[in-house]
Amino acid sequence: MNEKKSRPIGVFDSGLGGLTVVKMLLQRLPHENIIYFGDTARVPYGDRSKQTIIQYAKDDIDFLLTHDVKAICIACNTADSMAKAEMEQRYRIPIIGVVEPAAKMAAATSQNRKIGVIGTKATIKSGAYAAVIAREAPDAEVISVPCPLLCPLVEEGRFLPGDAVVESVLRDYLAPIKAAGADTLILGCTHYPLLYDVIETLLPGVTLISSGFASAETLIRTLDSLDLRNPSTDPGTIRFFVSDAPERFAENGGMFIGRQITGEVNRA
Amino acid sequence: MNEKKSRPIGVFDSGLGGLTVVKMLLQRLPHENIIYFGDTARVPYGDRSKQTIIQYAKDDIDFLLTHDVKAICIACNTADSMAKAEMEQRYRIPIIGVVEPAAKMAAATSQNRKIGVIGTKATIKSGAYAAVIAREAPDAEVISVPCPLLCPLVEEGRFLPGDAVVESVLRDYLAPIKAAGADTLILGCTHYPLLYDVIETLLPGVTLISSGFASAETLIRTLDSLDLRNPSTDPGTIRFFVSDAPERFAENGGMFIGRQITGEVNRA
Repeated sequence: MNEKKSRPIGVFDSGLGGLTVVKMLLQRLPHENIIYFGDTARVPYGDRSKQTIIQYAKDDIDFLLTHDVKAICIACNTADSMAKAEMEQRYRIPIIGVVEPAAKMAAATSQNRKIGVIGTKATIKSGAYAAVIAREAPDAEVISVPCPLLCPLVEEGRFLPGDAVVESVLRDYLAPIKAAGADTLILGCTHYPLLYDVIETLLPGVTLISSGFASAETLIRTLDSLDLRNPSTDPGTIRFFVSDAPERFAENGGMFIGRQITGEVNRA
Repeated sequence: MNEKKSRPIGVFDSGLGGLTVVKMLLQRLPHENIIYFGDTARVPYGDRSKQTIIQYAKDDIDFLLTHDVKAICIACNTADSMAKAEMEQRYRIPIIGVVEPAAKMAAATSQNRKIGVIGTKATIKSGAYAAVIAREAPDAEVISVPCPLLCPLVEEGRFLPGDAVVESVLRDYLAPIKAAGADTLILGCTHYPLLYDVIETLLPGVTLISSGFASAETLIRTLDSLDLRNPSTDPGTIRFFVSDAPERFAENGGMFIGRQITGEVNRA
């Protein structure tokens, strides 16, 4: 019996962004089953208070637990940076976030010890990235910039090089990071991998770290250490749940995960 | 005893935008007491499904009713266009929206019978503006454009003439309205009065109709017809409630209402 090991991994985000993390998990853990929940009835989390984000994260995890998940991946930088400590106190299940893996990777990558971080207002205000970097690389300077317009722009499909609006907005946001001469930039929101190409043209030579990539590696190590890897050699199954507007999720989700998807509805 | 008449008017919106309607009410109904509720824990409503918006509108009105309001003003185009009919069935209190007053005013204003409407995705998808205009001015052509990036831009303070980003985004959105030669444009979202000056420069000679202005006039007529005007000659009182992040509400609300405000928290 491998019942415990074949249970799914639960992944949640405020909406669509977490699908970029799922994309990494599908590549790195192709035999695992996944349950995804996007809280599309209450997205975005990035401007909300800590108290509200903790409540929402709890609701999201409670839903995933109804699917008997073996581990939780918080695929939302805002929820991770604002609520992870409380969730770890509340639940006994392994919880992997996006902030700590990306921050550690940045600390290990930066040569000149100048690291930029971009994210939502809540993520930046939490200081979560800066705190991990301070622990891992105490000599590093961290330049953090809240970028509230990037999620709406990405969701409207405005993330490609040559889009004058997104380039102008990004140029403003990235100016202090460029001025400081950072050699490493953490894309501290799961929407931002779609902006990779634009950011690369604006910050040539800077190493860009997507939180999803680092997170998948951490999840692999965690599952291995607990002997929870699914031994199946079949492709894993994946189900997507949202709290609102599944047709919009199906329509827009594809650009985040790189394939066609459909969402089932779970209303609170 | 004028107890019934001195009861407050309840106003709600998904967040901050409804404050532009309150601004009009303060000018036109200076002796009325007002209770405002902004659902900042679940803002924005503009991308959500009809079913979810109906549930949220119900929650918002239920909260206002705990303050014994004598009438409700739905100061949110999305909630009004998606949920007003259901709210009128559910509640016996007078409910004034923003859509019908503005659509009637536009129908009465347009000379060349070409009327533009801009709003959130949900507002435009509802067809609420087009339906009222079709009834009031059957010969009029309506050009409706969803403008999902305008609310985030306004909330970030990017609404002034000369801001290249907002001008570029607006130029795209307004192109079909300009091409059709509309002589009247409904600003079908309570955030958009802040964009008045930019839109005016992009559409010279076009009459711009803010939903808040028309709504205040309709509210006056409704209160008069029901003999519910507050006979007091003192300035009315106003209290602001939000479901999350009152400090952010106080910080950003000023630009919508044109004065300093503070918000009290009502969590669901």
